[in-house]
Amino acid sequence: MSVVWFNGAIIEGPLQLDPADRGLTLGDGVFETIAVYDDHAVWLEEHLARMEGAARELGIGFDLTRIHDGVATVLAQNKFDVAVMRITLTRGVVMPRALTGFGESPSLLITLSAFDPSHPTSITLAVSTVRRNETAPSSRLKTLSYIDNIAAAREVTDRADDALMLNAAGHVACTTIGNVFLVKGDRLITPRFDQGILCGIARAKLLHHAHEMQLKPIEAIVTLEDVFLADAVFRTNSLRLATPVTMLDDRTLGTRPIHDIKHKLETLIGRT
Amino acid sequence: MSVVWFNGAIIEGPLQLDPADRGLTLGDGVFETIAVYDDHAVWLEEHLARMEGAARELGIGFDLTRIHDGVATVLAQNKFDVAVMRITLTRGVVMPRALTGFGESPSLLITLSAFDPSHPTSITLAVSTVRRNETAPSSRLKTLSYIDNIAAAREVTDRADDALMLNAAGHVACTTIGNVFLVKGDRLITPRFDQGILCGIARAKLLHHAHEMQLKPIEAIVTLEDVFLADAVFRTNSLRLATPVTMLDDRTLGTRPIHDIKHKLETLIGRT
Repeated sequence: MSVVWFNGAIIEGPLQLDPADRGLTLGDGVFETIAVYDDHAVWLEEHLARMEGAARELGIGFDLTRIHDGVATVLAQNKFDVAVMRITLTRGVVMPRALTGFGESPSLLITLSAFDPSHPTSITLAVSTVRRNETAPSSRLKTLSYIDNIAAAREVTDRADDALMLNAAGHVACTTIGNVFLVKGDRLITPRFDQGILCGIARAKLLHHAHEMQLKPIEAIVTLEDVFLADAVFRTNSLRLATPVTMLDDRTLGTRPIHDIKHKLETLIGRT
Repeated sequence: MSVVWFNGAIIEGPLQLDPADRGLTLGDGVFETIAVYDDHAVWLEEHLARMEGAARELGIGFDLTRIHDGVATVLAQNKFDVAVMRITLTRGVVMPRALTGFGESPSLLITLSAFDPSHPTSITLAVSTVRRNETAPSSRLKTLSYIDNIAAAREVTDRADDALMLNAAGHVACTTIGNVFLVKGDRLITPRFDQGILCGIARAKLLHHAHEMQLKPIEAIVTLEDVFLADAVFRTNSLRLATPVTMLDDRTLGTRPIHDIKHKLETLIGRT
């Protein structure tokens, strides 16, 4: 059973949600998912900083003290060796009815659920017809409006483990749940911040520590051709860290091992 | 006070929502908003047909009988001369945790709220930097993932009544809450279905009945230049019907009256 904290207290059973809460009615909110190992929320401050930036850009009330209180309360109830904590912040109710307007009482939901930390050895990708929209908050920020990622994942589910999403320009952006990296010689390459991607926490950590692995970090415009010519391709996210990608559609990708990269991320979260 | 029906019964106070309901956590659902005049839900079957199409495309369980039961129950409690009914259908809870997967028990929320039917005489628009994504379900279907429209509306709120959204190709798509029409000579022009628009019910009705107003209905690729050169520009949606647009950014638009178009829509919903 998950631990659930909602608007100030641990609850059992369902939420008591206002039927006009914009998180439910319009995907109007932001969230973060955070790995929790032995009661330690990994990269918590980085996740909260990203959430605060997204909330501010969208004009959603953000109360860091309230979030810290909720996180501490939830962690005190933790019964899992490995868990995933999800923090969901909605705009709350906006009156009168209009897309604009400030939510008077944002809703804050924090859940802690069991998480299976066993990483798949590798994954396959297929290119989705659903593109990322570089101009849209839903592509840059971790908002509740996730339907395009869901549609992309559903589109390829019979032929691959995850969908590779291109942006409107046709360049490589990301997968439905993570960032994409290429290794080519001594370069560690990932699509640039303005390519319709969510700038992941694991992505930032890898770029920051690349030199320690004798790799040059490069944020760039990445093409499908670059992916096919890379020595290695992998996906990153905060929960699964780095996962090698072996195939894109029906083509085999570079097979250079990424043990050092996986080891670096595990070291950074204190798991080695 | 609104009338609220949730998963089978009229409720007072908050919803009892599963904290993992994907409508709340991932904007994973669809909705419709429907005008209700004197207990009559306007264009109900058209709205439900659109909702069913969206639910099927997204793989969300759709039960027409259940929706009709809820609508009838809510309408029986109606105390408003003019109201807006919103039908919200979510995927429900998906286990195990993954973007793909079928929701076992979709949540259905139907609300009926007071609605002020007084139409603004006219509105102004400003072009948003947030583009519509022609490849994305969130642009074609009425999903709960509405954050990009919210961001576009917020972006222009200090200088216009609504945002005009272009698509990735830079062509005119729609506003954040309605379709866009131009009148030019005897032509009634609106962006084509594949231009990153939600195909509105009022839009379909106008196209169908254009000939009765001696207008030729044309679905096309529409440019900003077309907007500036039109005799008249107006916005449509199911609640506000047709509203003239007088300005786009700092430029005055064509001033040809659209009384006949407004009158046609009012006649179609039985309001004349």
